[in-house]
Amino acid sequence: MKRLSYFILIFVLAILVIPALAGAQGKEAPNLKVMADTVWVLITATLVFFMNAGFATVESGLCRAKNAVNILSKNVIVFCVTSLAFWAVGFSLMFADGNPFLGLDGFFLLGLDNSPAVGEAYKGIYSSLNWTSVPLYAKFFFQLVFAGTAATIVSGAVAERIKYFSFFAFSFLMGALIYPIQGHWIWGGGWLSQLGFKDFAGSTVVHSIGGWAALVGASLLGPRLGKYGSDGKITPIPGHNLGMATIGAFILWIGWFGFNGGSTMAADPQPISLIILNTNMAAAAGGVAATFASYLALGKPDLSMLLNGILAGLVGITAGADGATVPGSIVIGLVAGVLVVFSVIFFDRIKVDDPVGAISVHLVNGVWGTFAVGLFHREVGLFYGGGPKQLLIQIAGILAVAIFSSLANLIVWKIIRKAMGLRVSEEEEMEGLDIGEHGMEAYPDFSLKL
Amino acid sequence: MKRLSYFILIFVLAILVIPALAGAQGKEAPNLKVMADTVWVLITATLVFFMNAGFATVESGLCRAKNAVNILSKNVIVFCVTSLAFWAVGFSLMFADGNPFLGLDGFFLLGLDNSPAVGEAYKGIYSSLNWTSVPLYAKFFFQLVFAGTAATIVSGAVAERIKYFSFFAFSFLMGALIYPIQGHWIWGGGWLSQLGFKDFAGSTVVHSIGGWAALVGASLLGPRLGKYGSDGKITPIPGHNLGMATIGAFILWIGWFGFNGGSTMAADPQPISLIILNTNMAAAAGGVAATFASYLALGKPDLSMLLNGILAGLVGITAGADGATVPGSIVIGLVAGVLVVFSVIFFDRIKVDDPVGAISVHLVNGVWGTFAVGLFHREVGLFYGGGPKQLLIQIAGILAVAIFSSLANLIVWKIIRKAMGLRVSEEEEMEGLDIGEHGMEAYPDFSLKL
Amino acid sequence: MKRLSYFILIFVLAILVIPALAGAQGKEAPNLKVMADTVWVLITATLVFFMNAGFATVESGLCRAKNAVNILSKNVIVFCVTSLAFWAVGFSLMFADGNPFLGLDGFFLLGLDNSPAVGEAYKGIYSSLNWTSVPLYAKFFFQLVFAGTAATIVSGAVAERIKYFSFFAFSFLMGALIYPIQGHWIWGGGWLSQLGFKDFAGSTVVHSIGGWAALVGASLLGPRLGKYGSDGKITPIPGHNLGMATIGAFILWIGWFGFNGGSTMAADPQPISLIILNTNMAAAAGGVAATFASYLALGKPDLSMLLNGILAGLVGITAGADGATVPGSIVIGLVAGVLVVFSVIFFDRIKVDDPVGAISVHLVNGVWGTFAVGLFHREVGLFYGGGPKQLLIQIAGILAVAIFSSLANLIVWKIIRKAMGLRVSEEEEMEGLDIGEHGMEAYPDFSLKL
Repeated sequence: MKRLSYFILIFVLAILVIPALAGAQGKEAPNLKVMADTVWVLITATLVFFMNAGFATVESGLCRAKNAVNILSKNVIVFCVTSLAFWAVGFSLMFADGNPFLGLDGFFLLGLDNSPAVGEAYKGIYSSLNWTSVPLYAKFFFQLVFAGTAATIVSGAVAERIKYFSFFAFSFLMGALIYPIQGHWIWGGGWLSQLGFKDFAGSTVVHSIGGWAALVGASLLGPRLGKYGSDGKITPIPGHNLGMATIGAFILWIGWFGFNGGSTMAADPQPISLIILNTNMAAAAGGVAATFASYLALGKPDLSMLLNGILAGLVGITAGADGATVPGSIVIGLVAGVLVVFSVIFFDRIKVDDPVGAISVHLVNGVWGTFAVGLFHREVGLFYGGGPKQLLIQIAGILAVAIFSSLANLIVWKIIRKAMGLRVSEEEEMEGLDIGEHGMEAYPDFSLKL
Repeated sequence: MKRLSYFILIFVLAILVIPALAGAQGKEAPNLKVMADTVWVLITATLVFFMNAGFATVESGLCRAKNAVNILSKNVIVFCVTSLAFWAVGFSLMFADGNPFLGLDGFFLLGLDNSPAVGEAYKGIYSSLNWTSVPLYAKFFFQLVFAGTAATIVSGAVAERIKYFSFFAFSFLMGALIYPIQGHWIWGGGWLSQLGFKDFAGSTVVHSIGGWAALVGASLLGPRLGKYGSDGKITPIPGHNLGMATIGAFILWIGWFGFNGGSTMAADPQPISLIILNTNMAAAAGGVAATFASYLALGKPDLSMLLNGILAGLVGITAGADGATVPGSIVIGLVAGVLVVFSVIFFDRIKVDDPVGAISVHLVNGVWGTFAVGLFHREVGLFYGGGPKQLLIQIAGILAVAIFSSLANLIVWKIIRKAMGLRVSEEEEMEGLDIGEHGMEAYPDFSLKL
Repeated sequence: MKRLSYFILIFVLAILVIPALAGAQGKEAPNLKVMADTVWVLITATLVFFMNAGFATVESGLCRAKNAVNILSKNVIVFCVTSLAFWAVGFSLMFADGNPFLGLDGFFLLGLDNSPAVGEAYKGIYSSLNWTSVPLYAKFFFQLVFAGTAATIVSGAVAERIKYFSFFAFSFLMGALIYPIQGHWIWGGGWLSQLGFKDFAGSTVVHSIGGWAALVGASLLGPRLGKYGSDGKITPIPGHNLGMATIGAFILWIGWFGFNGGSTMAADPQPISLIILNTNMAAAAGGVAATFASYLALGKPDLSMLLNGILAGLVGITAGADGATVPGSIVIGLVAGVLVVFSVIFFDRIKVDDPVGAISVHLVNGVWGTFAVGLFHREVGLFYGGGPKQLLIQIAGILAVAIFSSLANLIVWKIIRKAMGLRVSEEEEMEGLDIGEHGMEAYPDFSLKL
């Protein structure tokens, strides 16, 4: 309560007293490089933002009609909540000056910063982002849409059984604490970045961190009613709208051009062209590989596996989109497309119920993509004569995030369970969360099968 | 008839005789600032164009399945019609040289113009846009997508009962006359702009003007059959596809980054970064506020209220996205999110039937956003020590538009009612407008409830 | 088999041995024109990529629910397959140095290239693209999304009856051979380009070539069961989800701003502004014309005709978006909107069953748009005093593509028919291809009519 009052006080000060940053930053003659960089960063950030629509449609499409409103609501509110959490706290913990484990300054986006000045000329407290020549607000917005992605990954894995306001609370803590603390280690100048860990656009920072939260959440919640019989039988629960799921996968693919392409935070022609092409080729290869893998494993080319294969390829190339060659990206994508099919089967075998395959897409392939940097990076990768050093550093980073994420998520999810409960009642789950949590139906004019 | 022949004559001349503007404008050495500005304006215009898809899906999703084809058709044709109307007449009335009430030159986009020359160097008849260094066709296209937005706002409020071709006619008159005349006052160098009225990206110009047309149209049409019982009972008519509504809200959110971000009509790094961030934060705050407001007012966190809360936050920040601080934007969004929930309830109480909440989102929050400039503008706002002057000017503008819009829409809607009727027959309304107006169904393979 | 081993060998070499192109291209001082051009090309390429989502939703929306998974799968896999085919073979056949009929160098995107150097300064083997100052990978990615569009056009015309893996094989051959060979003639420096044939953004290269493949495929497959009675009666088979179809049409419209606007492959302010405006006006005019044409021909304003009218206008303006005036573009769009309505009726009369109208949109209006360049080009068009020369050249190009495409597609489709069959069994067609080809349903929670 006291902390809350403190926050409200700062908030009121922020609105009424402190002179506006934007105004204070003044007007200069147009710097054309800064213009081009800022246009690039803002447009690519918008593409990443669009991924929220992709997650909302993929996830609701792959769940049941009776839970569609709930899933959509979660996917909408999670970005609203993350926006506030990352603005108030997260961005500072992640990028502000502090120590190798944590940023400790500039909450509420307040604090000295003379961006777009770069390098030596930069004066401010967000030094870890002093390499990109865009204004502070562009830096923040680009990083915010990444934070939102990490948080929304969780949504699919815990779908069809989690309480709405419990997910709301988790989203806030994810965007304020879990994501930014680990992000600081890797992108905020922290200990893993000092070690030489490479994660260009976030196979680990965004996807594994989101994936670990998904795995812990799904495990604690337990499977949906009726998914796993006492006799070991697995009952598939098919998604209710494959059209929506497909739209969503395309939107995510598009968004990823921004995700990886914008992570240069500069409109450098050669790198952004390579990165966007690598991103596309890994996705395409993932789709083709998953088609054949699902054909071999399941007997038919499954659409949801095709979509997850594409997403797996995209997650896989994210860490190394800048460092891989085009053929290397294709191989990374092919492996990802096969991995995701067998991973989905595996998690079903060990009875971790993940309605949309989020853990297989984001965690498993986030790890694969991070690992692949050690193999395929055209300067330091093992396959390119770079020796095993980078690969070992990559493994260290994977393990560090695995350990911290497991513990942090376990604590956060358990606190929420204690405070407000995690899972809806059996009756509500049977009837559908749309009625129980929101008092409405997604498709009231349609006759549904029960 | 005579006027029509005159138009056709000009049109034929335009195609066959008058040398192409674009060719005449010649080739110069690349001006890099003009390049960056033009890329920015065209890309953001494309994002705004995308809002048409957002309106189509939000509105059809929030109506009934039996009227879906009709609503989609309206949302598609409205932009086609506006494109022609605004090209032939609207753009000139709004931006061409004339008097404080009306532009009077350069119809059919013909007339002297040496853009991208700016300021003193500009020679042409669209002087009110001489401050932006992009070519004339980029100026026109950016303004066209705004005109389309104003027109399409109306579509939702009059849904499920208006005749298709009556709406078609209204769209033409909206894009040719109602929108551009008032637009001239504010953005075309007219009397309100001379007074100092501030409406950066159109809380009034686009949203209130669209909202007033919606209010007058919905009032004249009367409520849908069965909505309000003779005993005062209100029967909710739930939307038939919340997935589509959610996709639409995300698309609108994305489009708004273009709407506000592009309204600088220049790729100025600091302002566009601030504007896009403000836009996002107001939307996020609106979503969170509407969640809690609907939870308090209705007992559950309602998804359609969440979506409308986000849109309300976006409408609210539109007038002041350039002038507000980030915390100020959050407050504007929080207020908008609460306002929209109670406004929806209010209009239902006074029996103005607005199937999608367009009046509450666009009119009520358009007014709020315009008013908020007088409070939150970091240079002249009341809360920032600017005194009450700006606030009074804002109120004057709000009132002027309220009066003119009410009268103009009343006249236009009544002329259309006289000429071709407004409302479909009771039988058609019961059966659904899809069959009656279009001879087809939106979902012929699905079993629908009747 | 031997060829396959050869490909695998090159592939392995490409990954492990050959130094990465991107690395070799080095770092220079920022060239701001290259930055702006590259940003423009990559963003517009992303918009074109988005058209895949548009085709997927338009086509599945206009088919039946029981085939939705199949259509979606085809529209997803086609771009994955084209990505690999165009990378390995297609891009080289189309753009590499060779003879007037074929490019013959630089497979797997390997080969000398010092882009973004232009003109005389360019050293490399993709000389036909030496006029655009963007990096090679940006050139490739932009051309790839065009190749994908040509391939995906076919998907709609052969829908609801083609075997999945037969379509997969066709997609590969389309992207590797049929599209790039003809593309070389027109955009790769081949004989039609030497003749002076004008096809700015591909009314012929993309849309007619895609359309011919669609026509041959649909003809060889024969109509869907029940479409044409033995008594000459035509049974309409309505699309199952008009909401999806409408989203798709909007996405295609948006994508076309990238398609035409990006085809300058440079951020030249005047041309890109004109091109994007022309694109929009032709689409709007096409929509209005199709509304009235369908009202006159069918008695009601049909939504699917409205959507196809917009797409027809877009296809029609594609060849001449750079050369037409704004009024000229409107006329091109008006004609296209009328053409598409009567073309759809015509193909039904001659019993070519095209479930989504792809042949009428892409082939008929691709021809119209190519022809219209000879009439409306503001420098060489017949209506602008240019004489008949350009028109005759355009007709020559139309005929050349007609002849080659007919033969090439006939051969390729027949080989596939021989090797793996083209059409699913009658039982599978009745039950729906979703179960037969993919073992899943698009809408398992909904009660469908049978």
